[in-house]
Amino acid sequence: MQKKITLYDTTLREGAQGEGAAFTVKDKLKIVGLLDEAGVPYIECGNPGSNPKDRDFYAAAAKLKLRQARLVAFGATCRLGSSPEQDENLKALLAANTPAVAVFGKCWDFHVTDILRATLEENLKIISDTVAYLKANGREVIFDAEHFFDGYKHNPDYALAALRAAAQAGADWVCLCDTNGGSFPHEIGPAVRAACGAVDCPVGIHCHDDTGMAQADTVEAVRAGATMAQGTLCGLGERCGNTDLWVMAANLQVKLGYPCLPESSITRLAALAQLSAETMNITLYSGSPYVGRNAFAHKAGMHIDAVKKDPRSFEHVPPEAVGAKRQFLLSEISGRMAVLQRARQILPELTKDSPETRNILSELKALENRGYQFEGADASFELLVRRMTGLGHTYFDLKGFKVIINEPALDGHVASAMVEIAVNGEEEISAAVGNGPVNALDKAARRALERFYPSLKTMHLSDFKVRVLDSSDTTAALVRVIIESSDETGSWTTIGVSSDVIEASWQALVDSLEYKLLRDQAQPQAGE
Amino acid sequence: MQKKITLYDTTLREGAQGEGAAFTVKDKLKIVGLLDEAGVPYIECGNPGSNPKDRDFYAAAAKLKLRQARLVAFGATCRLGSSPEQDENLKALLAANTPAVAVFGKCWDFHVTDILRATLEENLKIISDTVAYLKANGREVIFDAEHFFDGYKHNPDYALAALRAAAQAGADWVCLCDTNGGSFPHEIGPAVRAACGAVDCPVGIHCHDDTGMAQADTVEAVRAGATMAQGTLCGLGERCGNTDLWVMAANLQVKLGYPCLPESSITRLAALAQLSAETMNITLYSGSPYVGRNAFAHKAGMHIDAVKKDPRSFEHVPPEAVGAKRQFLLSEISGRMAVLQRARQILPELTKDSPETRNILSELKALENRGYQFEGADASFELLVRRMTGLGHTYFDLKGFKVIINEPALDGHVASAMVEIAVNGEEEISAAVGNGPVNALDKAARRALERFYPSLKTMHLSDFKVRVLDSSDTTAALVRVIIESSDETGSWTTIGVSSDVIEASWQALVDSLEYKLLRDQAQPQAGE
Repeated sequence: MQKKITLYDTTLREGAQGEGAAFTVKDKLKIVGLLDEAGVPYIECGNPGSNPKDRDFYAAAAKLKLRQARLVAFGATCRLGSSPEQDENLKALLAANTPAVAVFGKCWDFHVTDILRATLEENLKIISDTVAYLKANGREVIFDAEHFFDGYKHNPDYALAALRAAAQAGADWVCLCDTNGGSFPHEIGPAVRAACGAVDCPVGIHCHDDTGMAQADTVEAVRAGATMAQGTLCGLGERCGNTDLWVMAANLQVKLGYPCLPESSITRLAALAQLSAETMNITLYSGSPYVGRNAFAHKAGMHIDAVKKDPRSFEHVPPEAVGAKRQFLLSEISGRMAVLQRARQILPELTKDSPETRNILSELKALENRGYQFEGADASFELLVRRMTGLGHTYFDLKGFKVIINEPALDGHVASAMVEIAVNGEEEISAAVGNGPVNALDKAARRALERFYPSLKTMHLSDFKVRVLDSSDTTAALVRVIIESSDETGSWTTIGVSSDVIEASWQALVDSLEYKLLRDQAQPQAGE
Repeated sequence: MQKKITLYDTTLREGAQGEGAAFTVKDKLKIVGLLDEAGVPYIECGNPGSNPKDRDFYAAAAKLKLRQARLVAFGATCRLGSSPEQDENLKALLAANTPAVAVFGKCWDFHVTDILRATLEENLKIISDTVAYLKANGREVIFDAEHFFDGYKHNPDYALAALRAAAQAGADWVCLCDTNGGSFPHEIGPAVRAACGAVDCPVGIHCHDDTGMAQADTVEAVRAGATMAQGTLCGLGERCGNTDLWVMAANLQVKLGYPCLPESSITRLAALAQLSAETMNITLYSGSPYVGRNAFAHKAGMHIDAVKKDPRSFEHVPPEAVGAKRQFLLSEISGRMAVLQRARQILPELTKDSPETRNILSELKALENRGYQFEGADASFELLVRRMTGLGHTYFDLKGFKVIINEPALDGHVASAMVEIAVNGEEEISAAVGNGPVNALDKAARRALERFYPSLKTMHLSDFKVRVLDSSDTTAALVRVIIESSDETGSWTTIGVSSDVIEASWQALVDSLEYKLLRDQAQPQAGE
């Protein structure tokens, strides 16, 4: 049994410094809830001294009923020449009223002299005074040793003196930051050992991914003595980002045996990562270790065959250990077995040599040549297999649609759509206006269908992606639309391809409606 | 001066096993050209024994005039019970007619017994016979030691015996593969040292990113004795992908001093990465170390201030060392200085306290609240600043547009658009049909404008992205469209936001046309 590692999330502070991140107070509260519920013990929430939105957050957060997490307000050590009592930033830190505070101070002599423009002694006094003041005000104090590793490379004595100044003033933790992200594991190890030898308090690690080393540096720091590990959701952070928190938890606990999260969270890491990305409105990187959609997706035919004999052959951990799913990708490389595997979930009696299997393969190839890609559109693939094997069910017939878009808007409506369908020979024509053509089409189609199939009311579109397939052909290029839909029991994904973004959206929309009816095994209600 | 490291690219084989990768023969030839030109000495191009498309490729590749690269055909060792002379796969390998071949063989006892279902001795004989046969046929042979690290953990003697079988049969290289991607740097180091001690030939390394260790493992292997390092463009590969080739080159050469590419390639790594992604029609990950758009993008106000004093304060290498650019992101966190910095490139006399600066900041904030994001839309930001500071130039006035979409198509046309503009009070109305509404609009707008501004003919749209901003509101949600346009001298990016994908596209399209006219300092030609 290895030592326990204390996880520390800084998505709401460091992550907010990532490109594209812009959290509302409501987003921040949601993220705190998610982390608390998963068992992350420290949550750093932003800098109340530099950002008015962060002050609003702390006011709202004070009312949260947390299960176990401690919130951490973050800020700078007090200004050169100011006393802690008079420092505006420290006042804001205390006013945030969190049980813990993190303050960052300089450990790299170059930063002290050239950026802060202070003497080395003055900087040590700033650190010491700040920590002592916060301790006197009853806070748990984490001292963030900014640029510790760069400092240690250039002037190890001074970098360690900065840590000692914090520890001797009462800091509960010193956290070693590879602020510029330029350090390699072979540099991290010795520096962490020196830090652990220099102070009595426990030591943390905070890494950046500027050389692709964030995970490796974190692991090496833990092996060298660190017991707190900082990270962010989806690795969000300045420049190339930080250590991805959920991936780090898998590396530490699943692979290396350092406990850091409740087992019930470890076994649903993939879902936690997906939920984290959705809450932040970003796309989870498909190749993310452990938690990405492709982390256990096998494509080469030989890999697929071996995994079927024994999953250990091409999987370094069982996917279920982190709540992920094994997948066999559908493509010309993966070959017949992957397609068969997937098709058999629909039609168990298919064999490698059934004529149906050959038909499905050749249709798949033809569609792939036209820009379809079923790797990410499971529901459309299932509908295709069903149509080709006589298992398809016609829930409705499409007669056609028309869309009109006006700029400036006519009578307040940008787009109007007309959709003609038929159910069991009974025709229905519906129209709707919308704030865009896809919205108008979606509304018109549902209006036409809901009369026959009321269960459609429970589904909604949860994501909508457009990808231009051949960018050399500009606006006339083929576009691929992927729509994710969900209802209270799950989600599914459908695809459309066309040179017209509206037509592609329509295809994906129709597949989505049809798949919902299939899931529900819906029976049409008689028309009035 | 450190030892030289030989780079080996396997995008066209291992990368093709990544989700979403599907290369045509033409794509493959382009990628070979790019790698050869950059100075990558070995290019693995696919498995001629398992994939007919790869056979076509090798026939076409034989006609290439390469500067320096050696092409490598890839395949399995001969089948159990077959002699090399009769083995179909080895025949295909030789028929590919490349100067070098890579063959993979098993080093993990479990794989030999449970997947290959051979005895340990039989497997050694297969390796030895295969290598000897390929050497007898005049090929340079790279032996890919599949699952070497897992094998070494479970049965080090056997893993090393497999390497010896290849080396003693004449292999020019043995390449150690962490096939399942589960090894950590502290495990890689000792295993590589043992391998280097066991064979006389040079040793290579091939890593996967299943624990986020691909870069760290590669660096550690090189430090432990490996002299060949394998990678793929953009890190494409099975599951979580492989070591990213360009990032690896920066880590090895720029950071650690191991020469591996000509200096002229190192100083344009960012451009090479962008070109690689475009050639493969994938999006370069913005947080990619060294080469991603955000690798040197600073957002926190304090970071920006410090980087201005001395870039070393928050940059682990100078961006120009890898041909990248420093950026200051525009956002509420980055504050006034970043906006000012960017705005000053347009209007050098702006100061922190000019009323124009305050106006720009408050307009920017209002637009960000409505879903705009200027971090990735420089041209739209420049137009905004110009409009707000009286530097805007009205090239044309927009009166309105109408779009009609028909399904089924009417007379073969899915969409038709009508656009009304005016230049210097002279009105022009144009119509166009297109295979989609954005295409029809684009054509109609250009038709109306080109009469006045013929230089518009030289620009084209090179990318088109759509992002749904609030997926909880389904098809009625706000969408953000980003359009990248280029002409022979460069590229620029514009943004549009609306609940209507067509309206958002139109905004971005209009900004793009206007920015092109600004670049050209275009003067309208008199109408006829």
